[in-house]
Amino acid sequence: MIPTTDVVIIGAGPVGLFAIFECGMMRMKCHVVDTLDMVGGQCSALYPEKPIYDIPAYPKITAQQLINNLKEQASPFKPVYHLGSQVIALQPVEGGRWSVVLSNGTIIHGKVIIIAAGVGAFGPNRPPLANLEEYEGKTVFYYIKAREEFRDKRVVIAGGGDSAVDWAISLAEVASKVMIIHRRPKFRAAPESEARLHALAQQGIIDLIIPYQLDRLEGENGILENVIVKTLEGEEKKLEADYLLPFFGLSMNLGPIVQWGLNLERNHIAVDPSSCATNISGIFAIGDIATYPHKLKLILSGFAEAAQTAHAARALIHPGEIWHFEYSTTQGVSSLL
Amino acid sequence: MIPTTDVVIIGAGPVGLFAIFECGMMRMKCHVVDTLDMVGGQCSALYPEKPIYDIPAYPKITAQQLINNLKEQASPFKPVYHLGSQVIALQPVEGGRWSVVLSNGTIIHGKVIIIAAGVGAFGPNRPPLANLEEYEGKTVFYYIKAREEFRDKRVVIAGGGDSAVDWAISLAEVASKVMIIHRRPKFRAAPESEARLHALAQQGIIDLIIPYQLDRLEGENGILENVIVKTLEGEEKKLEADYLLPFFGLSMNLGPIVQWGLNLERNHIAVDPSSCATNISGIFAIGDIATYPHKLKLILSGFAEAAQTAHAARALIHPGEIWHFEYSTTQGVSSLL
Repeated sequence: MIPTTDVVIIGAGPVGLFAIFECGMMRMKCHVVDTLDMVGGQCSALYPEKPIYDIPAYPKITAQQLINNLKEQASPFKPVYHLGSQVIALQPVEGGRWSVVLSNGTIIHGKVIIIAAGVGAFGPNRPPLANLEEYEGKTVFYYIKAREEFRDKRVVIAGGGDSAVDWAISLAEVASKVMIIHRRPKFRAAPESEARLHALAQQGIIDLIIPYQLDRLEGENGILENVIVKTLEGEEKKLEADYLLPFFGLSMNLGPIVQWGLNLERNHIAVDPSSCATNISGIFAIGDIATYPHKLKLILSGFAEAAQTAHAARALIHPGEIWHFEYSTTQGVSSLL
Repeated sequence: MIPTTDVVIIGAGPVGLFAIFECGMMRMKCHVVDTLDMVGGQCSALYPEKPIYDIPAYPKITAQQLINNLKEQASPFKPVYHLGSQVIALQPVEGGRWSVVLSNGTIIHGKVIIIAAGVGAFGPNRPPLANLEEYEGKTVFYYIKAREEFRDKRVVIAGGGDSAVDWAISLAEVASKVMIIHRRPKFRAAPESEARLHALAQQGIIDLIIPYQLDRLEGENGILENVIVKTLEGEEKKLEADYLLPFFGLSMNLGPIVQWGLNLERNHIAVDPSSCATNISGIFAIGDIATYPHKLKLILSGFAEAAQTAHAARALIHPGEIWHFEYSTTQGVSSLL
């Protein structure tokens, strides 16, 4: 049995979560899909501890607390989450419904699609190395969860930005050897950090491997043995290492969304600001991914768009219905469940 | 010296308060005017203890707590409040400024006006009695703050709705005498309440004065002695009483705002939804008083409109400027003060 729902929300960031609540207030049930294996989008994945100051009635709230509250607010409406999964195809089916195909094979039928995908699926920029997948998650990492994992290990860091420099300095305190590969002598890091890096290099604590670039990995079953690096002229160097940490920043991309025939403007989905309807009936877009004249990329704007869209979606699903709009103070949430 | 500011906000309800914050984030200073003698608008005056369920990231918050939080969030930007005062005139002066004249005589010059006046100035419907002002606040009240004030007193309640019936029942427990005047036998109250009222009347605890209407007050220096009531046929009755509580509902009106040449649509100000600009350059309207196609009368909508308007107001005050829009997470609020 293919599950059928009123609304499929693509993206479980703050705006997608609030869309669950707004749809619930209009008595519509939601399935929610996100490529990350947790809700919260960038708030949870990139800056959970960062304070946010411009959410109304919160003089200050951390990104993760914001997400926790939004999830709690949505929870009475019992959304079905499909996490760690990407929408890979979207097709109209009979009865004015949409068939939503996920990368894990799940298929959902929804009456309406709300795209709240932020900057799109995002993740680390992966270096173009053969068999990289074999090592990822075992000896190649793009994020560091616990510094202790690297105690007494030989670590190769690749990249020239803040993350590369800051982690090189930090890991030098625990690792047995830290090597940092960069294609040119100049780093893009805070001046104090760069000065500290060079000081540690002069003391022989960090090896600067410059001007080299990653060429290939050697090892077996995901266990790294050597990182082979090369200059532009082709000169090779073999670095014996336990771990490779590539810090080449994050990339964001709309992924399969660009193939659905939606009107795009500079990588954003063009919508009617009053409803957030796209050019395709039944597909809406809200939050950072949606654009219209004078759009402000604020979480707050996405919240208000979620409310507008829930009303527009209800009108589309129930044409001709007169919806008795009630203030939440009249009845509360429980009367709508 | 006439004080000059960037923005004069008319209305200190939730949306007006959040506009202070959004203007502050854009480095604009605000003066805020409200007819009530406290901030919070209807939230504080009419339903402070009522829970609200549809503020993003608050599964539940009382109206007063919402106001407290919004006031705190605005406070770093040091708004100047003019409470208990109405804007009675608004005139353009040289230099593209507006002269704002308050009912207390204060004049403020502002570069931009943001009207966030909700349903307009609101207050109790006052019965048309001679010399009523003399008694108001002394022996005639439209709200009840503490039931104990009426212990062992003779109270006349006028009106036929929920407030009149519920307070008659409640005050019967403490007052020495409760009389309720209504022009017809049928009350507009919850059936259980009306049944209870009639039961108390049969027990002689409440006097139903039907079908009478208020005619005049007798007393001295604001101290009430008699309430004189009359039938439509002109038959009079004299009620000896210490207090009169007229419960004729609330009236809301836009007041002087309607005389400013703004485009109105059914008692609302028509605005461009992308900026909340009205038809008069330099005057914006946000929140419940503003309307545009598909407008939702949600506090949330007003919050988002406050953000749009702050950007539009900044562009108007500083034409041609390129504003470096920063997320609040980058710097926080303190860097903007």
